[in-house]
Amino acid sequence: MTTVSIVGGSGYGGGELLRLLLAHPEVEVKQVTSRSHVGEYVYQVHPNLRKGSQLKFSDPAQLEPVDVLFLAQPHGQAQHNIEQYAKLASKIIDLSADFRLRDAADYEKWYSEKHAAPEWLGKFVYGLPELHREDISKAHYISGVGCNATASNLALLPLVQADLIDLSGSVIIEIKVGSSEGGADGNSGSHHAERANVIRTFSAFGHRHTAEVIQEMGIQDISLTMTAVDLVRGVLATAHAKVKAGVITKDLWKAYRAVANQNPFVRVVKEQRGIYRVPEPKVLSGSNYAYLGFELDESNGHIVSICAIDNLMKGASGSAVQCMNLMMGWDETLGLEFAGLHPI
Amino acid sequence: MTTVSIVGGSGYGGGELLRLLLAHPEVEVKQVTSRSHVGEYVYQVHPNLRKGSQLKFSDPAQLEPVDVLFLAQPHGQAQHNIEQYAKLASKIIDLSADFRLRDAADYEKWYSEKHAAPEWLGKFVYGLPELHREDISKAHYISGVGCNATASNLALLPLVQADLIDLSGSVIIEIKVGSSEGGADGNSGSHHAERANVIRTFSAFGHRHTAEVIQEMGIQDISLTMTAVDLVRGVLATAHAKVKAGVITKDLWKAYRAVANQNPFVRVVKEQRGIYRVPEPKVLSGSNYAYLGFELDESNGHIVSICAIDNLMKGASGSAVQCMNLMMGWDETLGLEFAGLHPI
Amino acid sequence: MTTVSIVGGSGYGGGELLRLLLAHPEVEVKQVTSRSHVGEYVYQVHPNLRKGSQLKFSDPAQLEPVDVLFLAQPHGQAQHNIEQYAKLASKIIDLSADFRLRDAADYEKWYSEKHAAPEWLGKFVYGLPELHREDISKAHYISGVGCNATASNLALLPLVQADLIDLSGSVIIEIKVGSSEGGADGNSGSHHAERANVIRTFSAFGHRHTAEVIQEMGIQDISLTMTAVDLVRGVLATAHAKVKAGVITKDLWKAYRAVANQNPFVRVVKEQRGIYRVPEPKVLSGSNYAYLGFELDESNGHIVSICAIDNLMKGASGSAVQCMNLMMGWDETLGLEFAGLHPI
Amino acid sequence: MTTVSIVGGSGYGGGELLRLLLAHPEVEVKQVTSRSHVGEYVYQVHPNLRKGSQLKFSDPAQLEPVDVLFLAQPHGQAQHNIEQYAKLASKIIDLSADFRLRDAADYEKWYSEKHAAPEWLGKFVYGLPELHREDISKAHYISGVGCNATASNLALLPLVQADLIDLSGSVIIEIKVGSSEGGADGNSGSHHAERANVIRTFSAFGHRHTAEVIQEMGIQDISLTMTAVDLVRGVLATAHAKVKAGVITKDLWKAYRAVANQNPFVRVVKEQRGIYRVPEPKVLSGSNYAYLGFELDESNGHIVSICAIDNLMKGASGSAVQCMNLMMGWDETLGLEFAGLHPI
Repeated sequence: MTTVSIVGGSGYGGGELLRLLLAHPEVEVKQVTSRSHVGEYVYQVHPNLRKGSQLKFSDPAQLEPVDVLFLAQPHGQAQHNIEQYAKLASKIIDLSADFRLRDAADYEKWYSEKHAAPEWLGKFVYGLPELHREDISKAHYISGVGCNATASNLALLPLVQADLIDLSGSVIIEIKVGSSEGGADGNSGSHHAERANVIRTFSAFGHRHTAEVIQEMGIQDISLTMTAVDLVRGVLATAHAKVKAGVITKDLWKAYRAVANQNPFVRVVKEQRGIYRVPEPKVLSGSNYAYLGFELDESNGHIVSICAIDNLMKGASGSAVQCMNLMMGWDETLGLEFAGLHPI
Repeated sequence: MTTVSIVGGSGYGGGELLRLLLAHPEVEVKQVTSRSHVGEYVYQVHPNLRKGSQLKFSDPAQLEPVDVLFLAQPHGQAQHNIEQYAKLASKIIDLSADFRLRDAADYEKWYSEKHAAPEWLGKFVYGLPELHREDISKAHYISGVGCNATASNLALLPLVQADLIDLSGSVIIEIKVGSSEGGADGNSGSHHAERANVIRTFSAFGHRHTAEVIQEMGIQDISLTMTAVDLVRGVLATAHAKVKAGVITKDLWKAYRAVANQNPFVRVVKEQRGIYRVPEPKVLSGSNYAYLGFELDESNGHIVSICAIDNLMKGASGSAVQCMNLMMGWDETLGLEFAGLHPI
Repeated sequence: MTTVSIVGGSGYGGGELLRLLLAHPEVEVKQVTSRSHVGEYVYQVHPNLRKGSQLKFSDPAQLEPVDVLFLAQPHGQAQHNIEQYAKLASKIIDLSADFRLRDAADYEKWYSEKHAAPEWLGKFVYGLPELHREDISKAHYISGVGCNATASNLALLPLVQADLIDLSGSVIIEIKVGSSEGGADGNSGSHHAERANVIRTFSAFGHRHTAEVIQEMGIQDISLTMTAVDLVRGVLATAHAKVKAGVITKDLWKAYRAVANQNPFVRVVKEQRGIYRVPEPKVLSGSNYAYLGFELDESNGHIVSICAIDNLMKGASGSAVQCMNLMMGWDETLGLEFAGLHPI
Repeated sequence: MTTVSIVGGSGYGGGELLRLLLAHPEVEVKQVTSRSHVGEYVYQVHPNLRKGSQLKFSDPAQLEPVDVLFLAQPHGQAQHNIEQYAKLASKIIDLSADFRLRDAADYEKWYSEKHAAPEWLGKFVYGLPELHREDISKAHYISGVGCNATASNLALLPLVQADLIDLSGSVIIEIKVGSSEGGADGNSGSHHAERANVIRTFSAFGHRHTAEVIQEMGIQDISLTMTAVDLVRGVLATAHAKVKAGVITKDLWKAYRAVANQNPFVRVVKEQRGIYRVPEPKVLSGSNYAYLGFELDESNGHIVSICAIDNLMKGASGSAVQCMNLMMGWDETLGLEFAGLHPI
């Protein structure tokens, strides 16, 4: 068995990772650390793991060597300890934002602070297999992905891959998100009485995940607008752009199907009838799938491209496990077969 | 105009009170105090009051004399300052639990601390007009009501008033509540991602509001079981008891209708068809009505009595304003005419 | 008292209208018709109206003359009977889409059928007081407003009124809506188990309300994208456009404040702190207010303009009552003073 | 591979069964029938099954022989065709209520119609492994379980098995349920705008599932009170009873732990701290676990016993698959290892 440990396992990303790794047929979870929960059973924090594990949270200072180390700490921590972690494991997958951007100047611009380990940025591969499968399978260091960035990148991927966007205009991406995105540490605005029933646009533009979309899609004029809705898990990205002159619906079908065919977790959803005609995150809770759909207004070239994911899975821990599978040479879908539930 | 002020106006009860008093045709709101929000506009904390008021929160130390003083502080504070408040206003309505129980020993038993002003307990009238209309109209000091106690007391009122309960058995009351009951200060369990989609029985018995039901209904063997559900406003109390031998459905109709006829905010809901056949809090948000209903199993005398209210209205601020109306000799329903919304 | 009747009073719009008119100090509700509920109490369909009214639904065939007639039927009906209704009342306010568009060709284009009474289109004034206060106050026939169109029109109004938009680009409006928009007649997709927890983009473009935005704003290149979220009441419109070269945030403050100052139900929400910094519909349930906000990216002229309303109030019945107030020469806000609730 | 088919696969129970069987390592799904969806892909009805299957719904008239046949039709159908189904498969698991009661007179009493195949009642074993593991493993015909009955039976099981209940009093079970219980065919009351935000007591007593609790627990004086809350998946049963004189908390711990130790899908949840101290269905979506908890008021013997399950899993399809595992001699937990999600 391959040994793995999780640093920072008491948050939502860490908990989801733990759920996946405990059920993964090829790995053994050795340690899960948490500063504030040392000695507690993991199921006292992650109540779905009762009966699934008798593991207890370890002190991060007592971390032992493993084959693969997952870092699931709040942003800004991994970069300060990366040297130390690299001594404990030859393969590291970091879910935080610390090593997502290739350029230290970009990091400083979007995160408003100097990067503590800029020399490490070039060693990491951006951990979205749909964009970097080949590189990931050869890498030692993988960065996590922003959940909103992932929904945006996958919404744009068919258009960018087939070079269908007219880049003279702006790409506007409207993103609707559930409350688990905010992490396990709530604030006054996440109190149920304040957070239920909301349609709350908390970022008109300038969200940090924008940097990952610009970097990965190679498009400069992109904005993300973030709106919180009454849901726990799930992200929907709706991207608006203009296609190049002459592009018709048939071209789009071809581009979207190509992406779905190349990627085991991507599926085009575009039905003429039934309730679920378009991608929506509702049925993806716990699943690693990304559902893509689109509508083209042929009269003016306005394309609306939609991507739905579970922010904690494809948008975080699911993609991280998928990367581990690739790095280890296992089947890419191993331990990620859960279909999602309906109804839910 | 009658002048009123609110001490502790930044919580949910205080905010609801402020909404009602700002729209009340006979009163002028002079001050609203808050320790943590001094100098802020009230609408910065209560966003529904934009355009409705340019009032700012005052320092509680600068409280001025008024005709009616409302106390809406957390439990345990009013009892320490009641002498001082009594110098500022001849009429006081306290929404907290401090003066609800008549007996200082009861207070100590249920609240696990000695009462700081036991000599004041006898001066207060329990502020539920459906139980003490006459006394309230002559009183100077009115206590608030517990929201769960109110739903329970009103569910039992027709049965107790008509003396229909077989008191040799237990009265079991199951209460389902929304998240606003917990107050404006959230905790880890009220974080949306943890509090959404719950059916969470947080108190099997022993809830403090039980003391108010025992006191007001004069029944000793009563238990309240509290379950949180995914809703912001609303309480439903479902009371289980045995009726005396020979009691039939017709007797119950008579008893429930009598209570509805005596009380402008009580209504019997018991329909044979349609969606809303039984009392439910959904359509009562913002309204001061209590909906009562019942089912009797004539084969064994099992009565299920149901009461739905908005916890912030009939269960707190609405009843407080209703008491003020009675104390001032105004129409009992003044400023409380809002019907509730449908759908919502 | 001014007499009013409602044709088609069993739907959500009709029910909200009835709630408002029953509480309105200047009117007496004479009849409420419904084909399927003749003889039933109105509160059997609108459960919030218990104790508020003993009215029963009438047969539409027995409609009697009144001062003001409200039509709240499904789209496509009023146009077939308008001649007959005009004989019963000199003032008519129609909430349906039948008389919103000025041009019969537009109607045919967007509603895919010939208009049955094109000669009446010119007699109606579009019933949004924020756009046509003067004309409404002199009119006999008022059309209702589309709820999504209203949120869009008000989001754009400050920009259009101050002529700040660069019209060489597209205006993209993303709209998130609650389930009450779909009306009281559900379908398989509105079943709770399917409709809860959704982020469902049901119209990428081409929604019928687009026609009202194009007509009222005078902008051709506008698209509305509609997404259903888990909420009952409320609409949020987020409009994306480019401002003219040189426009800065200060210009926008001026434009938005001007609209708020001219209109009693419009309020600018743009706070630096607190939970409710931007417009959101959550606290507007039951209220006729429209909350407007904006963010400008001065680096590229991207303006994000936001409007929140209650779709059944400002987006339908509230605006209709506001129009009645203007037509009758009453205070514009009469019977519409409800502030909304917090929390909810 | 063992072949299985599902009759009536378009409902929620059938869909959940299909999800489990498609992922089950020992079976091959041969056919899924549906009268109204013949020829459609199963994922057009069960959107979570995209990419998981290219199966299409078959005509029930073309059903072929298989090893195990699952019946997931609406109640009242299987009893009319059981002879025919028995010719197609030697092992049958029926999820409907048709064969749950052992006594035809009981069926007639609770279902208000004569049973069409009373001679078959004795051939079926009630399909809750926690009650009949031994019999199930030898049986050819297994009945499904009512979801509310299952939550009730498991809440009572430790008390009944250890003979701790004072049977001279009543057992009152309060059950809170999500909307998926109502099945995939909605009604006016399940429309999202009407069903969201409810606390709706739809059955005070007399619910059909009561018959299964009486039969399986051997207690006559039991009532179930059913309340719908705003949730899609999940049931919580809260049972109130009196324990025999002298029973203390320690006795209960022993009884509950015994049941947990005997059953792989039962877990006792009774924590002193954290958010999830008691059983709640929120974290069980998609999982086959039953969480049990209790509180005893030693002063009066009032026991509150709580059971949380996912109604579509342990309360229906999960238990059915668990039965299949036992019948086939496989590991009881095969294909049922999913832990549930947190947060959700």
